[in-house]
Amino acid sequence: MIFQDSFTVEPWALRETHLDLSLLAQTESVFALANGHIGWRANLDEGEPHGLPGSYLNGVYELRPLPHAESAYGLPESGQTVINVSNGKLIRLFVDDEPFDVRYGQLQRHERLLDFRAGLLSRRVEWTSPAGQSVRVTSTRLVSFTQRAVAAICYEVEPVDGQARIAVQSELLANEQQPTASRDPRMTAVLESPLASEFEAADGNIIVTVHKTKRSGLRVAAAMDHAVDGPDDGVRIESRAFPDGGIFTATTVLKPGQKLRMIKFVAYGWSGERSLTGVRAQVWAALSAARQSGWDGLVSEQREFLDEFWDRADVEIDGDTEIQQAARFALFHVLQAGARGETRAIPAKGLTGPGYDGHAFWDTETFVLPVLTLTNPDSAADALRWRHSTLQPAIERAAQLGLKGAAFPWRTIAGQECSGYWPAGTAAFHVNADIADAVIRYIDATGDEDFARGPGLDLLVYTARLWRSLGHHDAMGRFHIDGVTGPDEYSAIADNNVYTNLMAQQNLVAAADLAKQHPDRAHELGIDVEEAASWRDAAEAMHIPYDDTLGVHPQSEMFTRHQVWDFEHTSPDQYPLLLHFAYFDLYRKQVVKQADLVLAMQLRSESFTAEQKARNFDYYEQLTVRDSSLSACTQAVMAAEVGHLDLAFDYLGEAAFMDLRDLEHNTQDGVHIASLAGTWIALVNGFGGLRHANGEVIFAPRLPGGLTRLAFTLFIRGRRLRVEVTHPSATYTLADGDSIEIVHHGHKVHLTSKKPQTREIPAMTPRPRPGQPPGRAPVPRRPLDS
Amino acid sequence: MIFQDSFTVEPWALRETHLDLSLLAQTESVFALANGHIGWRANLDEGEPHGLPGSYLNGVYELRPLPHAESAYGLPESGQTVINVSNGKLIRLFVDDEPFDVRYGQLQRHERLLDFRAGLLSRRVEWTSPAGQSVRVTSTRLVSFTQRAVAAICYEVEPVDGQARIAVQSELLANEQQPTASRDPRMTAVLESPLASEFEAADGNIIVTVHKTKRSGLRVAAAMDHAVDGPDDGVRIESRAFPDGGIFTATTVLKPGQKLRMIKFVAYGWSGERSLTGVRAQVWAALSAARQSGWDGLVSEQREFLDEFWDRADVEIDGDTEIQQAARFALFHVLQAGARGETRAIPAKGLTGPGYDGHAFWDTETFVLPVLTLTNPDSAADALRWRHSTLQPAIERAAQLGLKGAAFPWRTIAGQECSGYWPAGTAAFHVNADIADAVIRYIDATGDEDFARGPGLDLLVYTARLWRSLGHHDAMGRFHIDGVTGPDEYSAIADNNVYTNLMAQQNLVAAADLAKQHPDRAHELGIDVEEAASWRDAAEAMHIPYDDTLGVHPQSEMFTRHQVWDFEHTSPDQYPLLLHFAYFDLYRKQVVKQADLVLAMQLRSESFTAEQKARNFDYYEQLTVRDSSLSACTQAVMAAEVGHLDLAFDYLGEAAFMDLRDLEHNTQDGVHIASLAGTWIALVNGFGGLRHANGEVIFAPRLPGGLTRLAFTLFIRGRRLRVEVTHPSATYTLADGDSIEIVHHGHKVHLTSKKPQTREIPAMTPRPRPGQPPGRAPVPRRPLDS
Repeated sequence: MIFQDSFTVEPWALRETHLDLSLLAQTESVFALANGHIGWRANLDEGEPHGLPGSYLNGVYELRPLPHAESAYGLPESGQTVINVSNGKLIRLFVDDEPFDVRYGQLQRHERLLDFRAGLLSRRVEWTSPAGQSVRVTSTRLVSFTQRAVAAICYEVEPVDGQARIAVQSELLANEQQPTASRDPRMTAVLESPLASEFEAADGNIIVTVHKTKRSGLRVAAAMDHAVDGPDDGVRIESRAFPDGGIFTATTVLKPGQKLRMIKFVAYGWSGERSLTGVRAQVWAALSAARQSGWDGLVSEQREFLDEFWDRADVEIDGDTEIQQAARFALFHVLQAGARGETRAIPAKGLTGPGYDGHAFWDTETFVLPVLTLTNPDSAADALRWRHSTLQPAIERAAQLGLKGAAFPWRTIAGQECSGYWPAGTAAFHVNADIADAVIRYIDATGDEDFARGPGLDLLVYTARLWRSLGHHDAMGRFHIDGVTGPDEYSAIADNNVYTNLMAQQNLVAAADLAKQHPDRAHELGIDVEEAASWRDAAEAMHIPYDDTLGVHPQSEMFTRHQVWDFEHTSPDQYPLLLHFAYFDLYRKQVVKQADLVLAMQLRSESFTAEQKARNFDYYEQLTVRDSSLSACTQAVMAAEVGHLDLAFDYLGEAAFMDLRDLEHNTQDGVHIASLAGTWIALVNGFGGLRHANGEVIFAPRLPGGLTRLAFTLFIRGRRLRVEVTHPSATYTLADGDSIEIVHHGHKVHLTSKKPQTREIPAMTPRPRPGQPPGRAPVPRRPLDS
Repeated sequence: MIFQDSFTVEPWALRETHLDLSLLAQTESVFALANGHIGWRANLDEGEPHGLPGSYLNGVYELRPLPHAESAYGLPESGQTVINVSNGKLIRLFVDDEPFDVRYGQLQRHERLLDFRAGLLSRRVEWTSPAGQSVRVTSTRLVSFTQRAVAAICYEVEPVDGQARIAVQSELLANEQQPTASRDPRMTAVLESPLASEFEAADGNIIVTVHKTKRSGLRVAAAMDHAVDGPDDGVRIESRAFPDGGIFTATTVLKPGQKLRMIKFVAYGWSGERSLTGVRAQVWAALSAARQSGWDGLVSEQREFLDEFWDRADVEIDGDTEIQQAARFALFHVLQAGARGETRAIPAKGLTGPGYDGHAFWDTETFVLPVLTLTNPDSAADALRWRHSTLQPAIERAAQLGLKGAAFPWRTIAGQECSGYWPAGTAAFHVNADIADAVIRYIDATGDEDFARGPGLDLLVYTARLWRSLGHHDAMGRFHIDGVTGPDEYSAIADNNVYTNLMAQQNLVAAADLAKQHPDRAHELGIDVEEAASWRDAAEAMHIPYDDTLGVHPQSEMFTRHQVWDFEHTSPDQYPLLLHFAYFDLYRKQVVKQADLVLAMQLRSESFTAEQKARNFDYYEQLTVRDSSLSACTQAVMAAEVGHLDLAFDYLGEAAFMDLRDLEHNTQDGVHIASLAGTWIALVNGFGGLRHANGEVIFAPRLPGGLTRLAFTLFIRGRRLRVEVTHPSATYTLADGDSIEIVHHGHKVHLTSKKPQTREIPAMTPRPRPGQPPGRAPVPRRPLDS
């Protein structure tokens, strides 16, 4: 748990002003830098102490066996786990031969600052060695958005009083020792020494290493170059390489007022195909480019990249500065996770830690891509192209399961199913409809024709085929999808999960529609009129169960007839329930881990009447325990829609502070990218009331008492659309691009370039606030500003 | 697959007249000897070649880790696996220094004979060594029913022509090398060298060893003594012991007409508690007793024991000698599995092989104990006392699962849950009602008051408490049991499984009834009137789903609305389905591995109308693939009841030949005790139409075309009741004991001692024979005699 005062409250940065060693792992995650390709946890430059050392390359994993107490057909026997690649962050400092270590001597001053606009993590330290020598260290890091293979550090040290002998040792280190994993099933399997050395060399200021993972056979090159600036009367330079890395040392004597400055450029490259010389050449090239730009060049490119991003994507909030800060922190991390992935996955924890084994799940498509689609659409396309690149294993998996089309994995790095527990893995087929949903949303928002007729159509068609073969018609002609698991992981293997059925319905129709628009490609994919018609028929006949007695939708068939979980006798320390109760017990009772039916109401908004939404929301509210980080934002959106604005505000707080306050107690192994994206979703889809599908852009904005103004920009169909919401009214501005029609609270608004249109927000009849399970109400959000 | 001509057809024995090395493992199982305490597979005396060497002691197991790809609350982390204890069967023969090995030289003659009345396995061999020396070997084995710690072998060798130097080497061998296990999930994990040596000694003709299992900490003593008889001019004797066993050798020169005879007495003892000296003393004592009886004494005691058994339990069949043989083979193995278990489990494969890890399952209570209850009731009581001895771990397991009462394990040796796959383990709660059913049946049949007020009441009460806490009432007051798995393993985690609900209903009522009869014990168990009333209420309100549209009972809620399995496109080599399809696919479709609803109709006969039985039977018949050995007998019983007598006869054949023809392809790791018991069930409950519950003994006999007479004896309430059925009539004779009222086809018949009563069998309207899934019809039974 991180406490409220761990960070200062400011709109454009995250700042820590004292170092709490017990929170090292958490802060390494929240201060982590990444560009979607390289991820560096915010480990201290000197390596120790650490919470969890981590340097990641998107897509670099090792295989590990997945053991089963009782094996069965179709269970994956091998899993993929993200590995800690060569650590290029290390810069060790020796002051008069004493190693700089915050655990010894006196830490006089400490500050770490993550600047969302600069894209830099800087650290300022003043430290007195056990022998009494004080030094001032300033280190600034970046993982470049513009040169994706490059990261760099500017490290400066100066003596505070009196002359000091200073050695700065820059290191590149493979197979770094890792702390042991806990027994928590959510924790990652730690793999020891996954990298086998293939090449190392030290050449002047440059050190290069090449390694290969032992089982997955991926080749990883890491290299570093250095520029050193010190007193004119001499800095001694030395470098050496060894199989697990290399060390570059600069030694000098500094008088007060003198500085030693080391710029460290680090380049990474990896490949499952290319030769040793190929990947080695790749990192040399990246290093040269970085040297050419120089530190200042890298810093200014970074700023430019981010200026453009914020211009397109910023969300402004008045009334709650903490939320303002959290929203930008969230967007910054979402960008870091997705920016330069370039047909690699966006893992659940981005590249900020090894949590969930570094796997990507459905939450990328359902929570992260909707945000990227409207703020940084190229990243969304990249992530979907990654899915498309895994079509072949998904087709093979479907065949193995006796199904047509493609069955995308529940969790994976490279495309193969890595879930060791099928009731919450294989059975969670909704991931396929979630991918389709992201495709539909992306095409709808961008109108990207190339994508649509290429990977988009492939993804829709193969997932539609899956649904058609997974479901069946009953004697009354209704289409059923039996024995599947929806988003809520406290239920499994149920019939007609409403979320799954509605999402599959959308998937089937969209595939048929898009195939019709691209008859040549449809022909290529072997789609005839009969097949397309069978998709439409199944969608039309899709069975959506409804409980007439209670007047609500059961999450799945029979759900509302199950026993309600005994919340009264569940103590606070028994949450999350999965660590204290058996799945068999959770599955057969009414208890919801995370929004499921409620998420269906957000994503398939038009399939529910307003009254159904209100009744369903209140019903599920009292059953939902939010043992998942993927719930608060959805509950915020639907609470706002059905009129519980203050409850929505509380849920916004929960989504926004998931990592800044470590609400799920696992920020240590990485930040929750989907929950961070959920902060934006709660704001834009929640208080902005945005829904977009089928070519319509609908807003129904309404602010909670705690906010006075909300403004955001969307990048939609090549246009920038700015929305500014206050309590009485909303103003829509088309910042650039052709005119467009939007909907405000049910009324059409025609927008032409740069002409703001203001509309009143209709009054709303307040409804009584529903209850949550005892002890599971969200923390009431009280803005510091109020 | 064992072919029809592997064994000769004879009524009282199983005989093999040629040795097929490819069937070694299967024949080691079918010829195995056991007494419920010691089990010896029919490995050749000389140890090699072997299919699977096996010597077992009931209850001796080793622990092994149960790995989980994703761990979760409540999953067992350790399993128990039966181990191969010291092999005391070994007798090696050397003929002029050449080892006797059937793979070399010439096997001139071979016969193995298992005599069901004598309880002996004998082997006659004539063999010519590669050097041309012929010998005749006769070896006879027994595992004593009367001296449970003792087994013995009489081994005789004589030269056929010309003088020969003969060495007979008797061995005791721990940690015998095992063949590697296959990847079939049903195969046992083979544990290498589980025994750590603690003591060994050779003293004259006696060798003693004591070992301890490495993880489970069980101490096992094995000892052997020898009596040697040979030519007067000298037999040289030598013995030595070593940590893994010992060797006793007798060497001599035999002239034609001379014999060397070695009697080998073997004693076993084990304990989890007693000291080394304790278990060592135990086997010495057992050896002394065996020596006192001598070989002839052991043989005649064995015969006496079996004479009594057959007198009480024999089933006579006219019209089909193969079935006659199979029925006695079956009863013999059921007796061997249960005879002297004495508060140890009856494992699924008895003590004939390591299949299913040596675990006991629900099938002991549901298939084996009903047979033992009426033929050898003390064994049934012993087996139930074993369950009772595991009450404490079952109470702890229930508490771990958040339930009251006791949750008995799905599979175990010592009482702890060893199932690594919870949807077909923990969720199969019906095992608890099955135990209760066996208790109810045993009390009903024996009137054993001591058992009833002691372990019987405990078992009923703790299981009733489980059901009461597992189920819940709905808004309409109906009692539901959600999220459980019934007997059919191709469905799982379903609501209101009819079998489970009906068996739980019986359990709840029986607990309340028995508690009322024993108020003092009820008080001790803390049962107040409210608790007993809540059991009756739950039973009364038990929800039994019914599909009005189809007019059948769904096996579980929603079952009949699921898609029917695509049998047309399932090829014969895709059975058993579990090896070729994922559970997710099997679970969500209408396909039945083994009788489930149909078993409910047998065990809770009174809960269904005759018409419902007929419709249900025909409906499930077309969905049932019998990928389990626990189906054919139940289908035989219900087919007979609803009027498909010839189909019932076919299923009888399948149950009867399960092991003699290796129909499931896994007889190699042990015979299927429950399916063997099912042969008796198909005959007595099927064609005899026996149902007994609530004090009534009901018969509705009716023979299929293939049989002309069926006669059987039941041991019921201290009486022996003989029933003889022909096509036109049935004759009931009370062989001894007080008069009793029985029911014959709905009419009461009063039986007084030794006065046979003959009644006509009413005519029956034939009904059209239902179909099975394509390719899954039982093999038509054509008696050789017809």
